[in-house]
Amino acid sequence: MKIIKVGMIGFGTIGAGVAKILSENSEIIEKRLGAGIELIKIADLDITTDRGVRLEPDVLTTSADEVINHPDIDVCIELIGGYEPAKTFLLQAIDQGKHVVTANKALLAMHGDEIFSAISEKGLSIGFEASIGGAIPIIRSIREAFVANRIHSMEGIVNGTANYILSKMSDESCDFNTALKEAQEKGFAEADPTFDIEGVDSAHKIAVLTRLAYGTPVSFDEISVSGISDISSEDIECAREFGCRIKLLAISKYDGQTLDIRVHPAMIPVTHPMANVNGALNAIRVCDDMMEENILIGHGAGALPTGSAVVGDVVEIGRNILARVGDRIPAGSFQGEEVKAIPLKDISAIESEYFLRFRVLDKPNVLSKISGILGNHSISIESMIQRGRAAGDEGVSLVMMCHKSSEKNIHLALKEIEKLDVVCEKSNLIRVEK
Amino acid sequence: MKIIKVGMIGFGTIGAGVAKILSENSEIIEKRLGAGIELIKIADLDITTDRGVRLEPDVLTTSADEVINHPDIDVCIELIGGYEPAKTFLLQAIDQGKHVVTANKALLAMHGDEIFSAISEKGLSIGFEASIGGAIPIIRSIREAFVANRIHSMEGIVNGTANYILSKMSDESCDFNTALKEAQEKGFAEADPTFDIEGVDSAHKIAVLTRLAYGTPVSFDEISVSGISDISSEDIECAREFGCRIKLLAISKYDGQTLDIRVHPAMIPVTHPMANVNGALNAIRVCDDMMEENILIGHGAGALPTGSAVVGDVVEIGRNILARVGDRIPAGSFQGEEVKAIPLKDISAIESEYFLRFRVLDKPNVLSKISGILGNHSISIESMIQRGRAAGDEGVSLVMMCHKSSEKNIHLALKEIEKLDVVCEKSNLIRVEK
Repeated sequence: MKIIKVGMIGFGTIGAGVAKILSENSEIIEKRLGAGIELIKIADLDITTDRGVRLEPDVLTTSADEVINHPDIDVCIELIGGYEPAKTFLLQAIDQGKHVVTANKALLAMHGDEIFSAISEKGLSIGFEASIGGAIPIIRSIREAFVANRIHSMEGIVNGTANYILSKMSDESCDFNTALKEAQEKGFAEADPTFDIEGVDSAHKIAVLTRLAYGTPVSFDEISVSGISDISSEDIECAREFGCRIKLLAISKYDGQTLDIRVHPAMIPVTHPMANVNGALNAIRVCDDMMEENILIGHGAGALPTGSAVVGDVVEIGRNILARVGDRIPAGSFQGEEVKAIPLKDISAIESEYFLRFRVLDKPNVLSKISGILGNHSISIESMIQRGRAAGDEGVSLVMMCHKSSEKNIHLALKEIEKLDVVCEKSNLIRVEK
Repeated sequence: MKIIKVGMIGFGTIGAGVAKILSENSEIIEKRLGAGIELIKIADLDITTDRGVRLEPDVLTTSADEVINHPDIDVCIELIGGYEPAKTFLLQAIDQGKHVVTANKALLAMHGDEIFSAISEKGLSIGFEASIGGAIPIIRSIREAFVANRIHSMEGIVNGTANYILSKMSDESCDFNTALKEAQEKGFAEADPTFDIEGVDSAHKIAVLTRLAYGTPVSFDEISVSGISDISSEDIECAREFGCRIKLLAISKYDGQTLDIRVHPAMIPVTHPMANVNGALNAIRVCDDMMEENILIGHGAGALPTGSAVVGDVVEIGRNILARVGDRIPAGSFQGEEVKAIPLKDISAIESEYFLRFRVLDKPNVLSKISGILGNHSISIESMIQRGRAAGDEGVSLVMMCHKSSEKNIHLALKEIEKLDVVCEKSNLIRVEK
């Protein structure tokens, strides 16, 4: 039986998952692929920690070069994450004529063009299904299933840590810090969770998806990003009262002229199929001109779900190798010469529905002042709740849902409202996605 | 630019969708494929009805032979549905060395082995993504994304007509016949809706998925199938009271020994991500040993969603043609020689949670008699509602959720309960899937 030989750089959580799948499920892989996959070299700085996987004695090495320059290796898997040395290793492996598989969304978001060009020049294949949504087959769906369609929007819950925290706040009515602490204790959040809770990781992922869906390079730094650390228990409670849940969404919309890419918390109605995507689950919705919408839901992280996406890519490349094909599908979904820059829309230029929460003094005329200012900026209130004052509270909460308005007008109105002497705190805005 | 030449047999709703996509989105297809796709011949008995698509004058023909034997055609699309003459046409096209794409689940469920063998012998590719779940990329996901994993269960809402009717009954509290009539008026149900509402269409689809997921031939006739025509408004109402919704599910589970394949209405909790899959949407959940679960949701029918899956398959095959590859992926997901029969489990051998509804006389001791019989058969009641008697009613409804029990015991108990003189009607059983 033909054997596809694989090398791996990075032997952490996902690497151990990949090794486990290749070892435990070798029989099922052979039955489908018609060939075996053998992990012949794994490089990691730490080769002494027990990863719970039995390996032949000469497989582990501390030198990435031993993977990159190994003459027998067909496919090189990169799982160290981050920009460097991951980028250098990947480009070196490509230069050595190896197909590559990576789960590195940060690298692809920042240096995708360079890596895709290198792959294309060498006529090799790159797999990166594991970089977004763990086992969710979103890359495959965009590059292959929806290939004939004009995608016009994508919305994703693509960060398991943030979703775990928001779900916990909602299910157990606890505050952000309590939920974060528990997420850290249970291993759903890292010691420094900044990238996850502030939306940076989600932004990396939506940048990669945007490139694939619309065939455009993306300037990652221009994406508007806000995270979930300002979401309060009261926001969660208000969302419930309005029949909504709060999710950290990564959004990318293309109207044929400009791109609207952003990451922020958003309210979605409880009847939305993504409203029940809780805990560490991820979901991505893709809308286009032909199939209307598809929503894909699955585990977005973890050794085995992410490992299964990595191995799926290795099998895909294995099929190419067996068929003696280099690259069947352009890495970036579009033929290289068709990749064209699309201007980014500033977030102030978007329109959305909005949830607004004000902390105001319980005095006459407050509502008329606030609603007057909103009206002067063409913002129309859809529904409103004024919540009673609890003992010891200085102010009361005034929460409202507004019909579709321009982001610019909303901010002008909020600026004016915050100057009112009856307003106690900075007001809170959450966009609503239906 | 290289052109992939395509012929199509069947120019109904989906055929028109395919023609529209190939015509309207030729630019986006070329940008991704790096080649054009041209529909050079379409055969249908009716070539006079206006399908809303502009075609060159010599494209339409009433003779399928003109597609099958056309020397320039690379890919033959079959969209006439049913067993014959679809089967003959497909096999002839394969015999002529043409790659094929079909949306015909009935044909694949009954004659999949024969067609897959013919494809494999000729070293050709077959695409059938459109046969299940319209635009949902389920075939691709099973054959490619989850390729390294041992799938152990699949559950699907795979019939849009049945789902439309159940959603309507639930949202508008109307009865089955009213909902069916409206579905027919709106074009969501055919004049003879038997295959859809009695679960036959769902069974065809789960038979195809089972073959792909577990590498086994499936005897379609042995699948246990029950439809939704017995679901009453009261069942829907009771489901709501227990925090559930009723969906027609196609289920296929493999415990490593036997296959449990069945189609029946099932209650699922409202918090389940598939509970909000309403109207004509479809959803399929796949569980395996590595990625845990993936749920894919999308439009399961309609000219454009289904057409987009057909064109996706044509592009896939086009990529093979451009790379000069015949078949990269075995049609049935497993290498031909690895396809092994797995015994089917009789439905009486399954275990499930159950919803039971009895129509009983409002007399003392009724509950103790019924619960006694259930207890004697090791069936434990999780929760119960007794609904009051309305004016004019002879009996009252006693509804209950039971913990996991054996199907055999449930039926023995129901048989005994129905003999009680306080029971007015045949009792109602709906399985619960969590």
